[in-house]
Amino acid sequence: MCQYDSNVNEFEFINNIKSRYSLNQLGDDCAVLPKDGQTDQLVTADMLVEDVDFRLEWTKPEFLGHKALAVSLSDIAAMGGEPKWAMLSIAVPPKLWETDFLDRFYEGWMALALEFSVELIGGDISRSPDKLVIDSIVSGSVPKGKAILRSGARPGDVIYVTGDLGGAAGGLKLLEIGDKNGGELTLKQLKPQPQVNIGKLLQSLDIVTAMIDISDGLSSDLLHICEMSGIGAEIDTELIPVDPLLQHHFPAEQYLEMAFNGGEDFQLLFTADEKEFSDSKLRGIAQIGRIVKAVSGIQLKGQAGNRKLQPKGYRHF
Amino acid sequence: MCQYDSNVNEFEFINNIKSRYSLNQLGDDCAVLPKDGQTDQLVTADMLVEDVDFRLEWTKPEFLGHKALAVSLSDIAAMGGEPKWAMLSIAVPPKLWETDFLDRFYEGWMALALEFSVELIGGDISRSPDKLVIDSIVSGSVPKGKAILRSGARPGDVIYVTGDLGGAAGGLKLLEIGDKNGGELTLKQLKPQPQVNIGKLLQSLDIVTAMIDISDGLSSDLLHICEMSGIGAEIDTELIPVDPLLQHHFPAEQYLEMAFNGGEDFQLLFTADEKEFSDSKLRGIAQIGRIVKAVSGIQLKGQAGNRKLQPKGYRHF
Repeated sequence: MCQYDSNVNEFEFINNIKSRYSLNQLGDDCAVLPKDGQTDQLVTADMLVEDVDFRLEWTKPEFLGHKALAVSLSDIAAMGGEPKWAMLSIAVPPKLWETDFLDRFYEGWMALALEFSVELIGGDISRSPDKLVIDSIVSGSVPKGKAILRSGARPGDVIYVTGDLGGAAGGLKLLEIGDKNGGELTLKQLKPQPQVNIGKLLQSLDIVTAMIDISDGLSSDLLHICEMSGIGAEIDTELIPVDPLLQHHFPAEQYLEMAFNGGEDFQLLFTADEKEFSDSKLRGIAQIGRIVKAVSGIQLKGQAGNRKLQPKGYRHF
Repeated sequence: MCQYDSNVNEFEFINNIKSRYSLNQLGDDCAVLPKDGQTDQLVTADMLVEDVDFRLEWTKPEFLGHKALAVSLSDIAAMGGEPKWAMLSIAVPPKLWETDFLDRFYEGWMALALEFSVELIGGDISRSPDKLVIDSIVSGSVPKGKAILRSGARPGDVIYVTGDLGGAAGGLKLLEIGDKNGGELTLKQLKPQPQVNIGKLLQSLDIVTAMIDISDGLSSDLLHICEMSGIGAEIDTELIPVDPLLQHHFPAEQYLEMAFNGGEDFQLLFTADEKEFSDSKLRGIAQIGRIVKAVSGIQLKGQAGNRKLQPKGYRHF
């Protein structure tokens, strides 16, 4: 087991409830179900609640529709799946009935659905007394027995991450302080891009031993892989791919914190044998550390000295 | 088309939105998807919102857990399916964190899931600022091409209904007026029993031309069959199976209104050829009328005289 030295907070409380009642897709990003002789079905659900997971005054309806689908597509991507269909349940408060909110919400949702050929097959809609609540359900497919789990990492594997980290956390910070000049960085928070294509590609190469999407934050999501795989990890903090947009808005000493503990970048964190990965000739994927035995916990190495990971669960806001 | 002479209200507004954005499972109780060479997959989602679809002070957590699953199982039953797995997403307000609410909710949910061998495969949980919101997703299976749709009723078919009607509406009325002596009748509202076994049996007999579960009320749900099948109907109001429990609590003149317009009984309304149904030797299923051509609309006949249906959409409360 990895070391886990943090206070019991709401984030952990929710995670405890999730595993107690099997609400965590049995510990992975999606539930995996047999479909037919060649295929497994993946299913995931994500609930987004107004003023817990988003604020209407910080976003646009189109962005919210996009993000509601993106978070679930990211779960499919994290298992190497191909998204197929979606359901959408929404509880809508009276304040939004009379506006064009729903039209614009669906416009954003549909644009992303079209990009990945996801079909909307149903869902439900209800009145809500006060807050907007969205439940996003997405199903995908993966070759039988080939869903990439969190539990397959082995000592010696190298740890990789797609894309840049910290942008979504930086964007959130700008929204919180009311900075209107966030531009692209703010979009990283409001309109994240799920890594469906790279997830599918990694699955097809059959070289990945464990994978997760970075929704809670690199530190927390690495911990999930460690826990599920029963291993530890060494991370070189100098190698973490910090989002270059952060430098226009924040002092250097805040970058790493945002990239390491910030959530919702929806990049993929995965492990693979170094030679097999190298043979695949994939480009633009950062190598940030190595899997070690469980007794070592998670060790961070870098210019600031070496230390053990103190994971900070990141509950969006 | 059936005649539809009613004011545009929230109920219709929601239904319009459902069909506009494909949130109505393409006009039926469940979406139907190809699974493998022999089987189709059914999927349905139902969102229940505190103070819109239920009141915490009127029910028990166990009953609410039961009902959250029951409403979705009823959708599977309405297509003749066998329920297989479920997901559950819940947004929980702070007032319930500190209580045993979730334990008791799952106890009720699980007891019903066990009865029909439904596996909980995942879902999500979130904090909610104020109201409890539940999204219940259930998937089932049905032999390929054999899901019973709303669209297959033909002129000459007989109209049947399982069980008694009006009990759930009567129970709701007792809860609304604070009558604590509702007993069994109140349970019809709070802990409805989905007709999964009779739905499966009807499917296996291959005699049903159209089916729906009575969630909105007999009048509204009959209208759904009429609209989707492009036919009309003649109902003998004397033959509607009024719940006998109503007589202990309400004057006779209110029974029929409750049985005809009251929702949430979750019995099955279906159509079949009279001889084929008779040959099946099924017992305890009421024959309440007959399918006619669309131009006739929905005609009600009975002691109170003949009239055209004025459907009253029943939005729970």
